[in-house]
Amino acid sequence: MLPIPEKFTLSVGKGEGKEKLTAFDAALLDAGIGNMNLLRVSSVLPPRCVYVEKMDMPFGALLPIAYGSITSDVPGETIAAAIGVGIPEDADSFGMIMEFSGFCKADEAAQRVESMVVEAFDMRGLKLKEVKVKAIDHVVEVCGSVIASCPLFYKL
Amino acid sequence: MLPIPEKFTLSVGKGEGKEKLTAFDAALLDAGIGNMNLLRVSSVLPPRCVYVEKMDMPFGALLPIAYGSITSDVPGETIAAAIGVGIPEDADSFGMIMEFSGFCKADEAAQRVESMVVEAFDMRGLKLKEVKVKAIDHVVEVCGSVIASCPLFYKL
Amino acid sequence: MLPIPEKFTLSVGKGEGKEKLTAFDAALLDAGIGNMNLLRVSSVLPPRCVYVEKMDMPFGALLPIAYGSITSDVPGETIAAAIGVGIPEDADSFGMIMEFSGFCKADEAAQRVESMVVEAFDMRGLKLKEVKVKAIDHVVEVCGSVIASCPLFYKL
Repeated sequence: MLPIPEKFTLSVGKGEGKEKLTAFDAALLDAGIGNMNLLRVSSVLPPRCVYVEKMDMPFGALLPIAYGSITSDVPGETIAAAIGVGIPEDADSFGMIMEFSGFCKADEAAQRVESMVVEAFDMRGLKLKEVKVKAIDHVVEVCGSVIASCPLFYKL
Repeated sequence: MLPIPEKFTLSVGKGEGKEKLTAFDAALLDAGIGNMNLLRVSSVLPPRCVYVEKMDMPFGALLPIAYGSITSDVPGETIAAAIGVGIPEDADSFGMIMEFSGFCKADEAAQRVESMVVEAFDMRGLKLKEVKVKAIDHVVEVCGSVIASCPLFYKL
Repeated sequence: MLPIPEKFTLSVGKGEGKEKLTAFDAALLDAGIGNMNLLRVSSVLPPRCVYVEKMDMPFGALLPIAYGSITSDVPGETIAAAIGVGIPEDADSFGMIMEFSGFCKADEAAQRVESMVVEAFDMRGLKLKEVKVKAIDHVVEVCGSVIASCPLFYKL
């Protein structure tokens, strides 16, 4: 079996590039995850996975991560992404991670993602202790990107 | 090297949510894979990977999975997804997994995916013993989603 | 932690199929990666990851891979994909992988991806030793696909 992640953090970033992929890359760098190999997952917080403010990860490591992202090359457009993690009341239970991205402000993205976490807990009959949310927005200059992410990693 | 999966199953689900992501989440729950971290792969059945009716997986585990999925917020629309796994005649060979999703009934999705498996075996000059197929459809109420999947996992 | 890849290669392919997914599958086969489980990553070359011309990989293995791909069912359309890997001057540093796909010739795709690698190194203040690039194009017959990839694997 692949090892189950033991730590998580929340990380957001924004950036500009000459191409959509390099704008996305700039956002990843701003979020502190630009030097990892992102392995996108969908989207469960494993039981007893511990929140940390900052995560040490070796360059090029395979990093399981849930994220929302949006990239635009329309100058003046407002883009936003948000990530929300629902922590369960029962510490032995798992939690849920939800992401959102769209053409709005960070506040609205944060609200959307928070209500999605609540809905995901309701569907499972799980009790919610706390929702951690981070959101970011950006007004596109030339080609801009935002990301809101929940990297999942391991004790080193 | 990452460990090669040893077991597989076929699993379909459908659901409704307030947002597209929560509708997808409801479909995952219905398919019995809503509490895992899906790691989407493309799409080979490893040699000697064993079919099981039901798979035990710890919450939050990283689950390699091939799937087709479609989500719609147009009430009345019919959406469908199908998954097909081609089992090779030679037990030491690998097999192929194909997925399909679209606006049709489950029957049509199943036929499409079955012929894709046949085509994938033909391209490789592999002999086909059996195609396992599962398909599902759903008429969207508010925001609906279907998934047809082949989770790949390990002996615990 | 998931194991960090130790070897990489560059691989391109093109193919035709009856459906978009089987056309993509034909391109994967042509690129020599059609019998693996692709695990798409985004997109860092780990430090001291070694270039090899040819990579041995067991059937059905989970293969971390960065790639650009495009599939079209419009006969006569020219489609292209390119992959570029920037090797750092400092052998202990990491490198960057960039991919591109679009409606153009292989030459143009190669140029786009090369300048993206340069931009990614500039953003990080990294010194570039060399950019390895591979590109491919294809004129669609019925349903065609191209892929340009950087598979990342392990010493066996």
